[in-house]
Amino acid sequence: APTLTAKHAVCDPPLPKVSGKEIVQQLTKLATYTDDPNPAVTRVLFTGTDLSARGYIKQLMQDAGLGIREDAMGNIFGRLEGSSPGAGAVVTGSHCDAIPLAGMYDGTVGVVGAIAALAGLSKASFKPKRPIEALMFTSEEPTRFGLGCIGSRGMAGVLTPATLDAKLDENGTSFAEAAKAAGYGGKHHKDILKSTKVGDGKIAAFVELHIEQGPLLEREGVRLGIVTAIAAPAALRVTLSGDGGHAGALLMPDRHDAGLAGSELALHVEKAVLAAGAVDTVGTTGGFRISPNTVNSVPREATLDIDIRDIDKSRRDAVVDSVKKAVSDIAKKRGVRWTFDVVNQDPPATCDDKVVQAAAASAHQLGVKPKHMVSRAYHDSLFMAQIAPSGMIFIPCRGGWSHRPDEFASPEDIELGVQALGLTLARLAESSSDDLRTEL
Amino acid sequence: APTLTAKHAVCDPPLPKVSGKEIVQQLTKLATYTDDPNPAVTRVLFTGTDLSARGYIKQLMQDAGLGIREDAMGNIFGRLEGSSPGAGAVVTGSHCDAIPLAGMYDGTVGVVGAIAALAGLSKASFKPKRPIEALMFTSEEPTRFGLGCIGSRGMAGVLTPATLDAKLDENGTSFAEAAKAAGYGGKHHKDILKSTKVGDGKIAAFVELHIEQGPLLEREGVRLGIVTAIAAPAALRVTLSGDGGHAGALLMPDRHDAGLAGSELALHVEKAVLAAGAVDTVGTTGGFRISPNTVNSVPREATLDIDIRDIDKSRRDAVVDSVKKAVSDIAKKRGVRWTFDVVNQDPPATCDDKVVQAAAASAHQLGVKPKHMVSRAYHDSLFMAQIAPSGMIFIPCRGGWSHRPDEFASPEDIELGVQALGLTLARLAESSSDDLRTEL
Ligand SMILES: [Mn+2]
Ligand SMILES: [Mn+2]
Ligand SMILES: [Mn+2]
Ligand SMILES: [Mn+2]
Repeated sequence: APTLTAKHAVCDPPLPKVSGKEIVQQLTKLATYTDDPNPAVTRVLFTGTDLSARGYIKQLMQDAGLGIREDAMGNIFGRLEGSSPGAGAVVTGSHCDAIPLAGMYDGTVGVVGAIAALAGLSKASFKPKRPIEALMFTSEEPTRFGLGCIGSRGMAGVLTPATLDAKLDENGTSFAEAAKAAGYGGKHHKDILKSTKVGDGKIAAFVELHIEQGPLLEREGVRLGIVTAIAAPAALRVTLSGDGGHAGALLMPDRHDAGLAGSELALHVEKAVLAAGAVDTVGTTGGFRISPNTVNSVPREATLDIDIRDIDKSRRDAVVDSVKKAVSDIAKKRGVRWTFDVVNQDPPATCDDKVVQAAAASAHQLGVKPKHMVSRAYHDSLFMAQIAPSGMIFIPCRGGWSHRPDEFASPEDIELGVQALGLTLARLAESSSDDLRTEL
Repeated sequence: APTLTAKHAVCDPPLPKVSGKEIVQQLTKLATYTDDPNPAVTRVLFTGTDLSARGYIKQLMQDAGLGIREDAMGNIFGRLEGSSPGAGAVVTGSHCDAIPLAGMYDGTVGVVGAIAALAGLSKASFKPKRPIEALMFTSEEPTRFGLGCIGSRGMAGVLTPATLDAKLDENGTSFAEAAKAAGYGGKHHKDILKSTKVGDGKIAAFVELHIEQGPLLEREGVRLGIVTAIAAPAALRVTLSGDGGHAGALLMPDRHDAGLAGSELALHVEKAVLAAGAVDTVGTTGGFRISPNTVNSVPREATLDIDIRDIDKSRRDAVVDSVKKAVSDIAKKRGVRWTFDVVNQDPPATCDDKVVQAAAASAHQLGVKPKHMVSRAYHDSLFMAQIAPSGMIFIPCRGGWSHRPDEFASPEDIELGVQALGLTLARLAESSSDDLRTEL
């Protein structure tokens, strides 16, 4: 095997031929596959809209001359063959699903951009040693099954059949049933997960291009961010159940109002996060549903979906513990019943030095001094990091806004990000097994 | 015209022949028209389920030998003709719609019971002077259009076309469109309201039989309540709008969380009500919706439906003012935008002495010393009181519970209540114009 490594490279890879304007046209077309009118984008796993968007992604892969493959979970791969086709692949990708009323850049930049980067390397006559694959992950967003990163968890082999069995969508449909209806899947979750899990050494490195979803790059005027760590998320679901009653007739001393218990808990989440005293600790009650939810009825039930993240696992877990204690305290005070479920409580990820160095070298090749930073958002990279050396490249987004219709990244920043991605992939695709642990 | 009046009556009317067991059978059958499985009942205006229930009510009226009439809003009348058919009618009735996940007695006892009372008077060979009508009101509950007592407001002539024009259901359908699809209605809300408004003197008196929806009768072991006043309800809708954002990436100091603003407001409603210092003041945040309502997104918008009631109008209005001030204070503190709408803020009603006396005489005839009491719940009687001498008869319900699936009233109490209703109607139907202001 050759011994060329990134740090010994004597010449830079060629600049991938990409057009930010063209990528934005593709993103704009992709945004038209939505269940809410643009500029909002709503694209939920395995809906008709999602399936149409998948068709468009496969069309882009085909136009880029990539070989298309899909796994049982619906992860879609577009492969640029390497001169050592048996070597572990360098993989790049992100997601195209979108939470209700989101924007058109979250995830999509890292899928459409991945395809553009591979096409751009080909156009620049670059022939990689390792295969390079552009990847669209299934269901990074937790919208449909209440669990995020389903596709990457499956690829990393960290998802159990029992977990998937327990996650039903709001209509009681399982992932397997939804996947089957979409033309993917297998007989049981067990079979689906077994065939999706990536074999040892099959992925030599993983890189994800993404908008920052935070304000730092824009604020500091830096056009490229290189992620060194990904914050560790925890998701909690709490239900509070009182007795309901008529809003006129049930006097205040006789009430067990589940909605007010939920309101107290949501405010406690904020209080516990602020008490942690670190800017890196964030907590959100993103889901809040009451029942029966009519003006003249005392709320009988409240369901809260709570998200707590930190780059420090023990500090985050202390907030989770504080919230759990508050649930029982508030429930006791208000005389309501409660349940507390940890939907997920994943470990944080550290990005691989070789990937970070390849990305930094590529930024410098483009004349940019990048910012090394933490990803506070949840990404598929968190799970890919468990099976391969991984890293992320960030580009600025306006105001740090994401998950909203006015989410925006400029064509210039997108072009630069895709160039940096292409160069990073090219560097990694030349690296030997010493660096990347898999046979070149 | 004769001069016989209730207070000069020399003999009591005959006991109406009614069976509590049979009425419960009818209520149980009516409960099967529901969009959620029994024991829950969900029956929303002009749904297929509501229309089927209306068919059953008309069947009961027909079986009772009543003449059926429906108005443009879908109020259904079953008439027992009087020996003075041109005289103002004595009317009794309530509603059959049910909020989501409600029980089977709220409203229905006063509709099925009204029909049973009229049938029972006929079986006892009672022939009234005034006509007596059993009435099912359209949409007492505010579920579909966010406004309660639509039918009785229409009959009382206190609803404007502009108000109805502005109330759309969650699919953007107007009352007129929904009524038309259900086989009722008219060209515009204006026409519908004009034809629904009751002419002067057409209703000589109104009585509504209802479960108490509060704990007092059961607690005190009294089987009949006679309402002397109906608490004045106010309904508010508040929207709070922040900027949303990603639950991981948006740091705490940069947030404008509309969900937390909503939680603070809901807790303030409770605080303001308790600060009023009167057991008769109640306040409820019965509706609480956030958007986008996903675990990984900071809430961008919250909509709260708030219900505040009191028997004292000025004390209630002081709570409304306090809530309005809190909206702007909380919004300012959290940097969110807000709207504040008074959906309705109706005056309280005082029941008519003659109706109260007729009901009291009927209770005594049945061997019961009734409790004179306040109705804390909102009823169609509130609006009928604006056009006719009105009153209500309450029966106990288990635990005071209502608006929940385990709502319950015993067959014995229902039978007694229907007997009391029948006797009260019989007394009023004999009363002269001196008492009831309309020609006998
Ligand atoms: Mn996202
Ligand atoms: Mn994303
Ligand atoms: Mn009700
Ligand atoms: Mn009612």
